[in-house]
Amino acid sequence: MVTRLALLGAGRIGKVHAKAIASDKRAKLVAVVDAFADAAQAIADETGANISTIDAVLENADIDAVIICTPTNTHADLIERFARAGKAIFCEKPIDLDVARAQSCIDVVKETGAKIMLGFNRRFDPHFRAVRKAIDDGQIGKVEMVTITSRDPGAPPPEYIKVSGGIFRDMTIHDFDIARYLLSEEIVSVFATGSVLVDPKIGELGDYDSASIILTTESGRQAIISNSRRATYGYDQRIEVHGSLGSVAAENQRPVSIEVATKDGYTRPPLHDFFMTRYTAAYAAEITAFIDAIENDVAPSPSAQDGLIALKLADAALKSVREKVLVQIA
Amino acid sequence: MVTRLALLGAGRIGKVHAKAIASDKRAKLVAVVDAFADAAQAIADETGANISTIDAVLENADIDAVIICTPTNTHADLIERFARAGKAIFCEKPIDLDVARAQSCIDVVKETGAKIMLGFNRRFDPHFRAVRKAIDDGQIGKVEMVTITSRDPGAPPPEYIKVSGGIFRDMTIHDFDIARYLLSEEIVSVFATGSVLVDPKIGELGDYDSASIILTTESGRQAIISNSRRATYGYDQRIEVHGSLGSVAAENQRPVSIEVATKDGYTRPPLHDFFMTRYTAAYAAEITAFIDAIENDVAPSPSAQDGLIALKLADAALKSVREKVLVQIA
Amino acid sequence: MVTRLALLGAGRIGKVHAKAIASDKRAKLVAVVDAFADAAQAIADETGANISTIDAVLENADIDAVIICTPTNTHADLIERFARAGKAIFCEKPIDLDVARAQSCIDVVKETGAKIMLGFNRRFDPHFRAVRKAIDDGQIGKVEMVTITSRDPGAPPPEYIKVSGGIFRDMTIHDFDIARYLLSEEIVSVFATGSVLVDPKIGELGDYDSASIILTTESGRQAIISNSRRATYGYDQRIEVHGSLGSVAAENQRPVSIEVATKDGYTRPPLHDFFMTRYTAAYAAEITAFIDAIENDVAPSPSAQDGLIALKLADAALKSVREKVLVQIA
Amino acid sequence: MVTRLALLGAGRIGKVHAKAIASDKRAKLVAVVDAFADAAQAIADETGANISTIDAVLENADIDAVIICTPTNTHADLIERFARAGKAIFCEKPIDLDVARAQSCIDVVKETGAKIMLGFNRRFDPHFRAVRKAIDDGQIGKVEMVTITSRDPGAPPPEYIKVSGGIFRDMTIHDFDIARYLLSEEIVSVFATGSVLVDPKIGELGDYDSASIILTTESGRQAIISNSRRATYGYDQRIEVHGSLGSVAAENQRPVSIEVATKDGYTRPPLHDFFMTRYTAAYAAEITAFIDAIENDVAPSPSAQDGLIALKLADAALKSVREKVLVQIA
Repeated sequence: MVTRLALLGAGRIGKVHAKAIASDKRAKLVAVVDAFADAAQAIADETGANISTIDAVLENADIDAVIICTPTNTHADLIERFARAGKAIFCEKPIDLDVARAQSCIDVVKETGAKIMLGFNRRFDPHFRAVRKAIDDGQIGKVEMVTITSRDPGAPPPEYIKVSGGIFRDMTIHDFDIARYLLSEEIVSVFATGSVLVDPKIGELGDYDSASIILTTESGRQAIISNSRRATYGYDQRIEVHGSLGSVAAENQRPVSIEVATKDGYTRPPLHDFFMTRYTAAYAAEITAFIDAIENDVAPSPSAQDGLIALKLADAALKSVREKVLVQIA
Repeated sequence: MVTRLALLGAGRIGKVHAKAIASDKRAKLVAVVDAFADAAQAIADETGANISTIDAVLENADIDAVIICTPTNTHADLIERFARAGKAIFCEKPIDLDVARAQSCIDVVKETGAKIMLGFNRRFDPHFRAVRKAIDDGQIGKVEMVTITSRDPGAPPPEYIKVSGGIFRDMTIHDFDIARYLLSEEIVSVFATGSVLVDPKIGELGDYDSASIILTTESGRQAIISNSRRATYGYDQRIEVHGSLGSVAAENQRPVSIEVATKDGYTRPPLHDFFMTRYTAAYAAEITAFIDAIENDVAPSPSAQDGLIALKLADAALKSVREKVLVQIA
Repeated sequence: MVTRLALLGAGRIGKVHAKAIASDKRAKLVAVVDAFADAAQAIADETGANISTIDAVLENADIDAVIICTPTNTHADLIERFARAGKAIFCEKPIDLDVARAQSCIDVVKETGAKIMLGFNRRFDPHFRAVRKAIDDGQIGKVEMVTITSRDPGAPPPEYIKVSGGIFRDMTIHDFDIARYLLSEEIVSVFATGSVLVDPKIGELGDYDSASIILTTESGRQAIISNSRRATYGYDQRIEVHGSLGSVAAENQRPVSIEVATKDGYTRPPLHDFFMTRYTAAYAAEITAFIDAIENDVAPSPSAQDGLIALKLADAALKSVREKVLVQIA
Repeated sequence: MVTRLALLGAGRIGKVHAKAIASDKRAKLVAVVDAFADAAQAIADETGANISTIDAVLENADIDAVIICTPTNTHADLIERFARAGKAIFCEKPIDLDVARAQSCIDVVKETGAKIMLGFNRRFDPHFRAVRKAIDDGQIGKVEMVTITSRDPGAPPPEYIKVSGGIFRDMTIHDFDIARYLLSEEIVSVFATGSVLVDPKIGELGDYDSASIILTTESGRQAIISNSRRATYGYDQRIEVHGSLGSVAAENQRPVSIEVATKDGYTRPPLHDFFMTRYTAAYAAEITAFIDAIENDVAPSPSAQDGLIALKLADAALKSVREKVLVQIA
């Protein structure tokens, strides 16, 4: 059996998914849609998919599922339309920048019984999964404290900041999801601090570029997140989980792991340049999990609900920074 | 010239300082005082110092300086007495658990013009100093975010918790000082969360054994501290500083740095068992700095004021946890 | 343009190459040949290639190139036949276990002007290439000493030893090639010692399972190779190059790079299980280089001559062990 | 009980031993002898020892033991004289550059029953001892292959080369001893290659600056030694032991273990600058072992015989390089 897919949105992340789809023989990309004809054409050329439109994909009974990589403000509408059309849906985070809109979208999805998976790619990173497995295997005992370091190589342009919902909704949202994945308990409080240390333009837009966040769970487990929009040495992605019997950590991955020793010391090359290269294996495993869920007719994970919770945590963080308070999560 | 020292308190940390004194030829331990005769005798045997009393040391014109390692509740009184007696003073942190008492003690010290140095040993660790030097050399640009991981190998007994002032005043206080040392700006706000995950008895005493803290400075620099009273793998002491041009980190030190590879993987031995072995070089360098200050007739650093500020940050952290609020520092 | 390939031999290494071919869109596997129908079928199913025969591939004008993964004793004949048929040839090492036969085969290839590339996959490993690049960039100055550690996870079965030509011809041959690649000078002497420490059956077959080899070049550069047929901790593949200005090393690669800390220490998982997983990227880059050579109509590298030299070094090592002498290379 | 020591030779290594003696309270340096008055005076000032002469030390019944750090060509005579005088003897390697002279010296020592210990400091390095312990504990099974990397930061002056006996007798001799310590079997054959790659002056003196050596034992265990007189990145001292159940390695030690990450990569500072700083703990433990042997009235280890064997291996290596042959050890 082959799952036939349409890709909606042929931008940076669309290309990543097109490549991931090509790595799973059970998946076939048959259609690609983008307002920019050139972007769609490039992926069509690369993959053999046809160029199509939203409406045509909706009506095409031969298409089993869609990969939504369009701008954020289109996600909820597209999810609802494709859910009603009976397609399985993979959607990049977030469902919507507005929690109420995201919730109403999820309600529609539930009515239709559509399969939906949210694009929290890091859960599929083999190293992070190995961390989770070490926890599941009891190697570190009961989880107590999670530390997540997550820094982008460079700040995005102001245009992106304007529509992204800000650092907590576009960047930390991944860390909120990974924190939940590792804490194994729901988060009940959020405290965040944010500063503008990297680029004053970010501050002018009302956003932050440097943030520290503390999350707690009902039983008192704690997670710390450290974010920056700039890391000169590459895409910094580390996690560490401390438990009653020990600790487990996933260090940064490197594209080339040599070390040169000279009179100036021992030098290893910088990290990956960004998520496209750092998480190649994760994106492939993510699509594989999506195909697995379709083939086995089970609900995909992470779910739309996971997406909603991460978004609520992002909102709480923003409120915490702005009002300088600890925010309780309902 | 030889500086003649008296050691007040011959317990665990007293022994550490006796050993450190022995490593600097310019220092000579001539007297040791302790309520427990056996403890004093052990150090006297080891060092050749005479067993003495507080009063005798006060009156002994041949003693230049005292090392105060007695219980915390005696620190302020001893500092005042020895300051008035014209001795140079090295005192283990804290001056007092009560900020007002610490302040009044400092006032006395100022009146007398006595030299006083607080026992923040970590500032003298060669690896942490190398981190500081990398910052000073401009290698990472402007400091933006500091991350401190500080975990004890095991929880102290309830008796200790009762008199220590709790986790923030006895353990995190070192991290507050190191955060200040690395941030290079005064801290203006403290948020802390605390849980009891390690030992319920600690909770019964009103204290916490697991804590996460966020500090900020006026310009928006941030520091994160992660504390636990238990780390099965040893005494976990790491710092990392992220700046505009890069990052610098000091990893854990190990007593033995071999690695064994078998079918089960690659294994390195656990970390140092506690501060006495981890910070041997730091304790020696600390005494050396104290002697330097005496010989050169300059004010020692860290000062009593540094001790007071760290104590205030500890109080703020406790208030933050208890009242679930962000605490501003005056 | 698409290069149309036939795969001769559908065994373990054949599967590796089939997968590598699938990763380069400019290459298309159109035929697969194997005496074992099931093996051929498996690859045909996986890739869409047709099952074929040697003769049919020879006569098929639509096939541009062959990948020879058949048993070693068929290599020379197949190379000659396909060279005469005007196909480009990629052949697994060695050309033949007999130097004279390998030489006569190369003579035929030269007459025909056929393109031929030898399967020294390690030259294409991104980490080893980065080592080579660091040398080329002058980072370590003039190359002086090369150290190669190369250990298999476990000994092959006696059946393999019987036909492989022994440890120097089937295993060390890769290290000889990498030594040449890194030394940047031809090797003029070989000294080897061999022992049977892993499996007595290997000794009964006249072979060795543990070997140490020293190579030298005309100008006095030195290479050391350490080989074992058993490494409980996985496939151990390390190189280090020492030069006048410094040193560069490529450490082992790991399938999962987490570390678990407990009271027993810090443990990282074992290495890759063998070459199929360790050198995935190298095999893909190797095929890419082969396709590049075909497309650009240039001689592929490493060449048949490189294969012959490595074989001569293997013969020299065997002679050195058996006769306990230093062997000069003509 | 305090062991009273005289230090013969107040040069570079004499200073190292004076410092080591000061770290063991059971040892007291009471006399120092050197032809250069200033050198002797410096150590006398530092330690409180008296300046003395060989003859005075010989006749001084209050001196229990001597530490011989004089030029190599005086070692054998001094050993004999002090053995006859009933002193315990610690002597820097080698006993003599001439095997026959060393042997006759050992004969005299045996007659007198004097305690003698040879200065192979590396056996006392805590990391190397931990490697040995891992072997003794059975963690890696049966020892099969030992790899020793030993590179000096820079070449010694020609004056030193002239009297040192050359690279094998002054530098590799330590590696021969460590190889024996780790192989746990006597060495039966030596093959060595030597080149002049670092400094042509060394070649003009008939010596080598870059060497690779293979040692084997009766049962076929193998050791590889890699030596260079120059390592721009510091004093490179690594060992690795491969066994039937696994492997154990001691990596290089670093004076400061921080890492700075910038756009140019991750950089750790260079290694220790030489043996005085790298082996501080080893020198202290070595003296402690010497004092232990005296206090417990047992034969010290490593013995004069260990020194003789290492010297014979050095001679064998030199013969191997010069005659291009494998040298069997009687």
